[in-house]
Amino acid sequence: MANFYSDNEDLKFYVEQAIDWPELVDLTELHFRTQDAPKDWREAVQTYRDTLDLFGQFVGDEIAPRGRALDSEGMHFKEGQVVGGPAHEAIFSQLKEMGVYGLLVPRELGGMNMPTILYLLVAEIIARGDVSCMTHFGFHAYAASIITQYSVKEGTAKIDEAGRIQSTRFDAIVKELMAGKAWGAMDLTEPGAGSDLAAIRARATRDAHGVWRLTGNKIFITSGHGNYHLVLAKTADEESLSALSLFMVPLTIEREGQTIRNGHVDRVEEKIGHHGSATCSVQFEDSESYLIGAPGEGFKLMAMLMNNARLSVGMESIGLAEHATRMARAYASERKSMGKPIAQHEMVADYLDEMETTIVGLRALAMDAAYAEEMAVRLEYLNRFERRTEGSSDSARQLSRFKRRARKLTPLVKYAASEHAVAIARLNMQIHGGYGYSKEYDAERLLRDSLVLPIYEGTSQIQSLMALKDQLGAAMKAPQRFLQKLATAKLEAVRSRDRLDRTYWSMRSLAYSAIQHILLKIARDKWSSAMTQPLPRLLDTFVRHWDPKRDFSPGLLHAEHLTRMLADVEIAGVLLGQARRFPERRVWAERWLERAEPRVRYNWDLVVHTGDRVLLDLGAKRHSAPTPKA
Amino acid sequence: MANFYSDNEDLKFYVEQAIDWPELVDLTELHFRTQDAPKDWREAVQTYRDTLDLFGQFVGDEIAPRGRALDSEGMHFKEGQVVGGPAHEAIFSQLKEMGVYGLLVPRELGGMNMPTILYLLVAEIIARGDVSCMTHFGFHAYAASIITQYSVKEGTAKIDEAGRIQSTRFDAIVKELMAGKAWGAMDLTEPGAGSDLAAIRARATRDAHGVWRLTGNKIFITSGHGNYHLVLAKTADEESLSALSLFMVPLTIEREGQTIRNGHVDRVEEKIGHHGSATCSVQFEDSESYLIGAPGEGFKLMAMLMNNARLSVGMESIGLAEHATRMARAYASERKSMGKPIAQHEMVADYLDEMETTIVGLRALAMDAAYAEEMAVRLEYLNRFERRTEGSSDSARQLSRFKRRARKLTPLVKYAASEHAVAIARLNMQIHGGYGYSKEYDAERLLRDSLVLPIYEGTSQIQSLMALKDQLGAAMKAPQRFLQKLATAKLEAVRSRDRLDRTYWSMRSLAYSAIQHILLKIARDKWSSAMTQPLPRLLDTFVRHWDPKRDFSPGLLHAEHLTRMLADVEIAGVLLGQARRFPERRVWAERWLERAEPRVRYNWDLVVHTGDRVLLDLGAKRHSAPTPKA
Repeated sequence: MANFYSDNEDLKFYVEQAIDWPELVDLTELHFRTQDAPKDWREAVQTYRDTLDLFGQFVGDEIAPRGRALDSEGMHFKEGQVVGGPAHEAIFSQLKEMGVYGLLVPRELGGMNMPTILYLLVAEIIARGDVSCMTHFGFHAYAASIITQYSVKEGTAKIDEAGRIQSTRFDAIVKELMAGKAWGAMDLTEPGAGSDLAAIRARATRDAHGVWRLTGNKIFITSGHGNYHLVLAKTADEESLSALSLFMVPLTIEREGQTIRNGHVDRVEEKIGHHGSATCSVQFEDSESYLIGAPGEGFKLMAMLMNNARLSVGMESIGLAEHATRMARAYASERKSMGKPIAQHEMVADYLDEMETTIVGLRALAMDAAYAEEMAVRLEYLNRFERRTEGSSDSARQLSRFKRRARKLTPLVKYAASEHAVAIARLNMQIHGGYGYSKEYDAERLLRDSLVLPIYEGTSQIQSLMALKDQLGAAMKAPQRFLQKLATAKLEAVRSRDRLDRTYWSMRSLAYSAIQHILLKIARDKWSSAMTQPLPRLLDTFVRHWDPKRDFSPGLLHAEHLTRMLADVEIAGVLLGQARRFPERRVWAERWLERAEPRVRYNWDLVVHTGDRVLLDLGAKRHSAPTPKA
Repeated sequence: MANFYSDNEDLKFYVEQAIDWPELVDLTELHFRTQDAPKDWREAVQTYRDTLDLFGQFVGDEIAPRGRALDSEGMHFKEGQVVGGPAHEAIFSQLKEMGVYGLLVPRELGGMNMPTILYLLVAEIIARGDVSCMTHFGFHAYAASIITQYSVKEGTAKIDEAGRIQSTRFDAIVKELMAGKAWGAMDLTEPGAGSDLAAIRARATRDAHGVWRLTGNKIFITSGHGNYHLVLAKTADEESLSALSLFMVPLTIEREGQTIRNGHVDRVEEKIGHHGSATCSVQFEDSESYLIGAPGEGFKLMAMLMNNARLSVGMESIGLAEHATRMARAYASERKSMGKPIAQHEMVADYLDEMETTIVGLRALAMDAAYAEEMAVRLEYLNRFERRTEGSSDSARQLSRFKRRARKLTPLVKYAASEHAVAIARLNMQIHGGYGYSKEYDAERLLRDSLVLPIYEGTSQIQSLMALKDQLGAAMKAPQRFLQKLATAKLEAVRSRDRLDRTYWSMRSLAYSAIQHILLKIARDKWSSAMTQPLPRLLDTFVRHWDPKRDFSPGLLHAEHLTRMLADVEIAGVLLGQARRFPERRVWAERWLERAEPRVRYNWDLVVHTGDRVLLDLGAKRHSAPTPKA
């Protein structure tokens, strides 16, 4: 009955108004030179709209009502096989028939050639139905796209002069994935290596016939019972990211009519939630493997995948939060206490307002990041073909702007969306009171499901470190520019004519001030004598003597506080930008700023006034610890 | 192997140093005139110490190792009976043999006559082993004590002139409870009445023989498969708390050798956690019931029980948080990443430091509240016997001081401890990374168990409302005194010689300033014209025209923000008081203040700068809603 696309005004706002389709469709359709290209961007968008409508209806009718069954049936390991229950089967057999796994694959290769941002909109819609379903869906639909990109990247794809991909090294696999007959998995984590990828022990070496053989144990592998594994393994001895290479490792290989086992799942994790997605432990032993790209490029290639995977988790988080918020609103409007619906009790009204505001803000950030990421990828791709003819430096500048923005926003999206999703799911439980704790209602299931979001695809802590390094790195690379930005923010906070702009700039100046505080603290710890220098010169000294391995400490402690500030500020900026184009969006900017401003001040307060004691303790401990062997 | 008392230095600090035992033992032992009284307070404390040691060992050896089994076995409803698994059976049969359920019952009635604060220390220890076990334990041990108190309160107990209770109306039940053969339950919640007790529909009327007959359905009844139910039901028509009366309703009655069924459990809730405790739905139909006290006294009598129940949940929360924090510390010290244990990574070090600081602060607040509550109860009891001889007004002042303090702190303990327990359990999960989400580790179980704490015994929202009303009420009853306290806090924030004292007073002055802001806002909304009056006169006007049913609105929205501030400030005060007596505690006061100060500023910020829009919306909605019938 429900249509999870058409009932969502804020989601439709992006499709109907906010996204710059003419620009994006033009790149996606290679200036309309793709096979069976739509006649113009409007026609393309109509297809996108229809696709979203199709998914909206399917998720509302077929996935959401099965959410509870997916949770209770789970995915289990039986006689060496991973099996789901009837609900899982019903959903994925229908998706297979719908033929939607080729969403992102070029039309020339049999796909639907849609923009990645559409995939991310679909991700939110599916996740609102069931977040674990979305995760598994991604390993069909996104996997097909990424291996196409890998083939392009390593130069094994056949591409014509217009940029049309005629074939790739992985065509057979892409076909299987699109047909829903197989799916992929990405294998990073090991028992001793989670966030710390340099500690990976899986090892690949070339045998006498020149075939790569991979041995290792990968754990927490989402949908790891799929056949096509993208596996990160060492191809050199040192413990560093540059020793890692990426391999395609099928669990089974068809050869001369026979099926050869090439790796296997040896257990399925029992998790607290996310039960529609199997989390596997996978064993490889001298497994035949196909190197992607060159040895040592593993981390870089995996990063291509991870950017989108993180945006995707951001959208999953928003979908789950949307579900929880609607559930809370519905319950609070029905449930009466003290003679009125609890939605009209001040505290609950404030919670609901906060939940709804948060979702709108997160979606704005995610859409902005997704657009930047996609534009960067597509511009970079097309530039290869167009450089010969034009070689515009405008385009290069545009590309680098999109790249910078995507790099800056992606960890903020993953961090903020997943953390807020947990908080919103918790509020939903709390609004349900005793019923929230009971398995008879769905609030507890959403909370359980939400808790994986800040853990997988890089924990919140890892996202924070990435955001921190990006910010500190930029400030150190161009200290003058950083100081200029701080000065501008401070000035605009005073002189902007619009009250909301002033709030925004004062938040932004607090974020810069927090970064400055961290930089000065690092400097003070290191060269207390140099502190009498004027700030610009100090920063120069600083950059020259910087040791990122040792000198980040005060920043690391505050990485999460800074990340929260940055997310709040960036969202404010995006919403204000929307308000300028669409006056009816001003109310959201206003709502966001009201709640974000105190948070920004709080996190600034934490950066500036806390942490020294813990750092001192840590320093003392390091000092007294026995020197580790090199 | 582990002893959960002796391994806990901060817990021992209270027993060995902080608690004023001479005063408390004197009251507990009725000035050493109780039967078999200890020879002095030292002897009494040695017994307490031995008892804590006994529990510490038992919980470490017998409960904690069964935590996972309690969770997986659960409590189920089979053929009309509620049954637990082998782990539950093993624990409670041993507790029965230990004969510890009479902990709080006077020695004259066969109990151990220990102070309630000891019970609360035990509560923390058991909860660290398993929080659901503690809940069930309470319905044996605390139930025996409260019905003794009820008999005293209603005047049915036989008490000698020294205050020794010779017998009570419930002696037979107390004996059964102490022997571990039965347990009690408290029945408040109904399908349509949770936080809103005035909406209770269970109804008791007197039949032709003068016997009370009670009919109704009670849900979410913890340990509701016990025989002795303290049931809140209506005995008058109006929908108000004063229509409620309290009844003792046994589920079965023995009469002339026969067992008569008088009520029954009709289902056991399936919950997300807390599986060692059965949460029942109980049906009463014309059930024979025994009125406690007078009709209309139900809410007041239930409140006697609830104060301690809330402190007890506070201690449960601290026990669970202690468990989670030790688990996190142990994991983080073992798990290595980037070449060192993650406990030495700045962000994780900061989390662990925060978790440990929070627990110390919460325990300090809970112990202070528990002491005040117990002193108030015992002084009030003894005053009845001593008024004849002395009638000191010192004692009356002391009593009212303890009462005020207990009333002020109890909701703060329940609120802060339960909310922090959830946050700490979540941090523990996050520190465990992917393992935190797996059922193979215990982090996820603790998080599931923690989530009931802010819901049962009055949600966090209800605690906030209580704290708010207490504060606004006090300020309005004596506006001059309130302004004086605000002025003092501001002054001390500047002139105190000790840096920590200055921080404390500035936090306190922010809390007062938040209250003042709320009061002024209420006033402004109501009498914008009166706002030109000087503040003291304004407050007087205010008090005369106060309508608590309508005028609380701006306060209600900020109840939780204010509660967080108050908890942070009160904890700071208690820790600073400890630091003055025991210099080695100063480090904890310092650690607390470092983290609490930014939080207090943040919540002040929220009170002062947010909420107006939501209140305006609510007002508009109320305005446009059809007028409800009177």
